[in-house]
Amino acid sequence: MQKWIERASSVAPLDKKWMARARARIDDQTRPQGSLGRLELLMERLVAISENDQLDLSKKRILVFAGDHGIAEEGVSAFPKEVTRSMVMNFLSGGATINALGREIGAEVRVIDAGVDADFGGDPRLVHAKVSRGTKNFLKSPAMSEEELDRALEAGWKQAEEAKRDGIGLIGLGEMGIANTTAASAIVAALLPASAEKVTGRGTGLGDAALQNKVRVISEALEKHGVQPSQPLRALQCFGGFEIAALAGVLLGAAFLKIPVVVDGWIVSSAALCAIRLNTDIRERVFFAHKSHEAGHARLLEQLKIEPILSLDMRLGEGSAAALAMGILSAAARIYNEVATFSEAGVAERTDGVKP
Amino acid sequence: MQKWIERASSVAPLDKKWMARARARIDDQTRPQGSLGRLELLMERLVAISENDQLDLSKKRILVFAGDHGIAEEGVSAFPKEVTRSMVMNFLSGGATINALGREIGAEVRVIDAGVDADFGGDPRLVHAKVSRGTKNFLKSPAMSEEELDRALEAGWKQAEEAKRDGIGLIGLGEMGIANTTAASAIVAALLPASAEKVTGRGTGLGDAALQNKVRVISEALEKHGVQPSQPLRALQCFGGFEIAALAGVLLGAAFLKIPVVVDGWIVSSAALCAIRLNTDIRERVFFAHKSHEAGHARLLEQLKIEPILSLDMRLGEGSAAALAMGILSAAARIYNEVATFSEAGVAERTDGVKP
Repeated sequence: MQKWIERASSVAPLDKKWMARARARIDDQTRPQGSLGRLELLMERLVAISENDQLDLSKKRILVFAGDHGIAEEGVSAFPKEVTRSMVMNFLSGGATINALGREIGAEVRVIDAGVDADFGGDPRLVHAKVSRGTKNFLKSPAMSEEELDRALEAGWKQAEEAKRDGIGLIGLGEMGIANTTAASAIVAALLPASAEKVTGRGTGLGDAALQNKVRVISEALEKHGVQPSQPLRALQCFGGFEIAALAGVLLGAAFLKIPVVVDGWIVSSAALCAIRLNTDIRERVFFAHKSHEAGHARLLEQLKIEPILSLDMRLGEGSAAALAMGILSAAARIYNEVATFSEAGVAERTDGVKP
Repeated sequence: MQKWIERASSVAPLDKKWMARARARIDDQTRPQGSLGRLELLMERLVAISENDQLDLSKKRILVFAGDHGIAEEGVSAFPKEVTRSMVMNFLSGGATINALGREIGAEVRVIDAGVDADFGGDPRLVHAKVSRGTKNFLKSPAMSEEELDRALEAGWKQAEEAKRDGIGLIGLGEMGIANTTAASAIVAALLPASAEKVTGRGTGLGDAALQNKVRVISEALEKHGVQPSQPLRALQCFGGFEIAALAGVLLGAAFLKIPVVVDGWIVSSAALCAIRLNTDIRERVFFAHKSHEAGHARLLEQLKIEPILSLDMRLGEGSAAALAMGILSAAARIYNEVATFSEAGVAERTDGVKP
């Protein structure tokens, strides 16, 4: 795992010179200073991440990683495990919510099998990066071996490299995996740290009794594996899933390769937490799309001191909130690139001499 | 003014049958029920407003109304009055923030002179609907006559009619007018009602002393004109501006003609408050884009029980937040139109028999 620690460590903090350069341009555009609020902070970070004064977010890609979870056999999801496979087929046929959103924002939607418990043959519409047919039940053993974790991380890292090669200006991250809110809750509980009660929610819609069972399962697993907050890679290995580890791999790769990347909701945030625990400088290179309706997400965002872009009570996953936030980031980039400065437009500045 | 009261009264509440029809389709799409949160509520309202089960938001138009304000001579703005004219020229040349956003979301940006204190000749890029060269100083007299108010409202109503004729599926509203936060604060203070202190903010960036002066000016004007919360048309006449009255006219027209319309920030919200005070059924036909950073906006939204789409600490105006929210609405409409149902996609439903 030393390779991943080294890769994470090689990510630098955002360059203050680029931040200042962005700020100067933003302040000179024909608007009262600061009047775009948090949108201006997004522009600053986009410039500093890409180290480019002309933002190019025209090519966008949404990466949806899918995987199955052995923990599903503990009855932690309202849906049967087969739904992972059938939703992957739905993504491939273009009928899911993320497909509609991809078309709306002009983003390619790429689906990656990181570990679905199904045989997709050689379906050419799918990226085949299956580590194994589902993780192991983490109440009984770690979800995956160290070698499997490495392969899952590599699957994600490779997607970041391909995005760089393809000139992608903005990556959005999504996921699909029945029972993956359980894996995400276990990871977040171990790393914040927090009790299972505090970070476990209803996922796709559990009732009260099933929620209690889910909390019990996570509590027992936390007890069993004893992962410490300083052990993000061990958290991924113990709790999984393959899609979450792959998401962590993309996040590390995108940060390393200076590609802005958008985190979706609860599941992707658990992967982001792992990446940030490996190197806190990754935090500023990642955009959090929204505050999910899933219990625990607000707590995670608060601890990381992150104010996400949207807050629409969504809890779907798939990259749906990431796609909406990519639209906002794309708009911010366009404003940065295209709006005239005061001198260009011949607009008078403030009467009191304060810089507008 | 009886005509406007009648027009407003003719707006019906949203049809519950259309709401139910939308809900049935949303719940049958391949997602856990309720998982798109507030986005689903936007879909329901879009369907019920347009009374159409196939949403068509492909043609979008942003209407930016500009006007000058006699009250500017009381030193209530950080910018000189000439900026209204020069920002209109900036809009026309495509160099302003709203132009970049219009290009981003694929919306036409139409600029309407409702009462700028400048001569634009016959510039064909501008809609000429000038009521007068600026309102009167409302510390000394009503901002406009009753006849002027009627003409300003008609200028807005006409834009709603033209949008209908042109097949526009979504209207966004913006404005430009030095000192118009002062007019908006006076309108909102009179109609909520609230004290001037509670609803007066720094506009484009006033310092403390100038803010105190602005509050004093508004307090004196409220005292002088004695507008009651039940008198929205009188509020428009007393405090102006022409662009705010025109915005109220579009809002009435769009509600009447069943076109979804997006309110920007503080100024457009003051016009929306007037329209809603004329008929509370207009409230559900109007989308509020964001919670502005301007003091008082949160209070207005709270009283109207409105949760806006975005909250990015913006305070620019021009229709900038409306444009971003139009992107979200457009995405919601596309999801509604394009996402497969469970039966279409062959995705299994919940294991516990609860409708997914």
